[in-house]
Amino acid sequence: MTKKQLFEQIQKKQSFLCVGLDSDIDKIPEHLLGGEDPLYTFNKDIIDSTSPWCVSYKLNLAFYECLGLKGWHAFEKTVAYIRQRYPNHFIIADAKRGDIGNTSEMYARSFFNELKVNAVTISPYMGEDSVKPFLCYPNHWVILLALTSNKGSEDFQLTTDSDGEYLFEKVLRVSEKWATDEQMMYVVGATQGKLFKKVRTIVPNHFLLVPGVGIQGGSLEEVCRYGMNSQCGLLVNSSRSIIYAGNDDEFAEAAGREARKLQLEMKEMLDKYL
Amino acid sequence: MTKKQLFEQIQKKQSFLCVGLDSDIDKIPEHLLGGEDPLYTFNKDIIDSTSPWCVSYKLNLAFYECLGLKGWHAFEKTVAYIRQRYPNHFIIADAKRGDIGNTSEMYARSFFNELKVNAVTISPYMGEDSVKPFLCYPNHWVILLALTSNKGSEDFQLTTDSDGEYLFEKVLRVSEKWATDEQMMYVVGATQGKLFKKVRTIVPNHFLLVPGVGIQGGSLEEVCRYGMNSQCGLLVNSSRSIIYAGNDDEFAEAAGREARKLQLEMKEMLDKYL
Repeated sequence: MTKKQLFEQIQKKQSFLCVGLDSDIDKIPEHLLGGEDPLYTFNKDIIDSTSPWCVSYKLNLAFYECLGLKGWHAFEKTVAYIRQRYPNHFIIADAKRGDIGNTSEMYARSFFNELKVNAVTISPYMGEDSVKPFLCYPNHWVILLALTSNKGSEDFQLTTDSDGEYLFEKVLRVSEKWATDEQMMYVVGATQGKLFKKVRTIVPNHFLLVPGVGIQGGSLEEVCRYGMNSQCGLLVNSSRSIIYAGNDDEFAEAAGREARKLQLEMKEMLDKYL
Repeated sequence: MTKKQLFEQIQKKQSFLCVGLDSDIDKIPEHLLGGEDPLYTFNKDIIDSTSPWCVSYKLNLAFYECLGLKGWHAFEKTVAYIRQRYPNHFIIADAKRGDIGNTSEMYARSFFNELKVNAVTISPYMGEDSVKPFLCYPNHWVILLALTSNKGSEDFQLTTDSDGEYLFEKVLRVSEKWATDEQMMYVVGATQGKLFKKVRTIVPNHFLLVPGVGIQGGSLEEVCRYGMNSQCGLLVNSSRSIIYAGNDDEFAEAAGREARKLQLEMKEMLDKYL
């Protein structure tokens, strides 16, 4: 999917919502647990009820890996389901991978050849040669961690060098030479508020994947005020607020309502800031 | 496994070799490919021939994930095989994981509960709360990336702040408050040579996982001269030089010979620097 196509979807649906399928086997409705593949069933129902209100799905590998083979299989099936039923949705594997060159090549093969997701999140710590192998797949995206939503972002990302530059700014500045905004996006946590201004000074045109709206407490309005650009440039993720909105046999409808609520807020933001 | 037990194995076998099972389905001997599970068969034979000469095995997830379910299954079976046949070997899942707290908890569950490895490599980029969930498992280890072996280490790890401190030094200094040297190790690439002195100034007692000896060109002697401490404190990894030493039906014997060669060099290093 190209940047232009993604923006077209955003305009068409008046939404830049990414639904995070961080599906925890210990939190999904109990009545599903007797089924053959509870996680996949949960995901399918959530996808069906939320797809009108979002443009993207993000699956965090951790929630699938912890179930071993069954989890991996549920992950594969979920991605295939979205590909088949909702081919215009942008699928992100939230894996935060990254390794030396030949190893990163194997990861890239996993995600782009095998699983056929549109994008994968990558950690920048090991530098250019750990990221480049993922950039060898045209029409596929790297989403590089820059400024994350959690408290631990203070430990390294928000430390400064002798020029007063934050590490996350250095990551943006250095990495944007590795690929254009047609192949690279960045993770910037919604909780980071005004720091979106600094981000946009360095990368005005890149799409940003923005977790942390919802349970983590980030403000959608602040993110849009400081972070939206002329092609929107934002994919705002919400997971737990949506997927656990309900806990009985109407869980999917409850999720759909939460997604719709967020989409309506996003429509307002597009009217205001685009 | 405790630090004391690991050191006992090192002394007993006069070796601090970790064999990296970065088993690439495109590189293993062709005659194995017709079998039911070529990767697992390859691994088992390599393990049997190298186990006398090493104290540890490291499996990089990338090489297994890229084969989807089959790969994940081969990974699980390989770990189980080592656990069963060679229970005193230290097993590392080289995953370079890391995510926000609740997600890291899922990863920790995967590796320590499900797969039952001894240790997992973690990226420090997201800070303390992304690493802490892995430290909730007594007798299990976090191996935090500090100064990696690849050229990309220059992009961020070797940049300095206003006090002249390298990012990798900050990672060591800040993270060593999160856990003792009975639960935390660090990745320092063999290619980094004299920088081991700086590492040892900050973390004199921690074990270091040292990739990059072999194909990547790091010097074992330099690593030991600057990096060995009174409990050895080193796990030196070699993968491709060992596991691809042969390419016919004597591949396992060839691997065994390479591992033995390295072990003899390590014995000299222990005599010289311990």
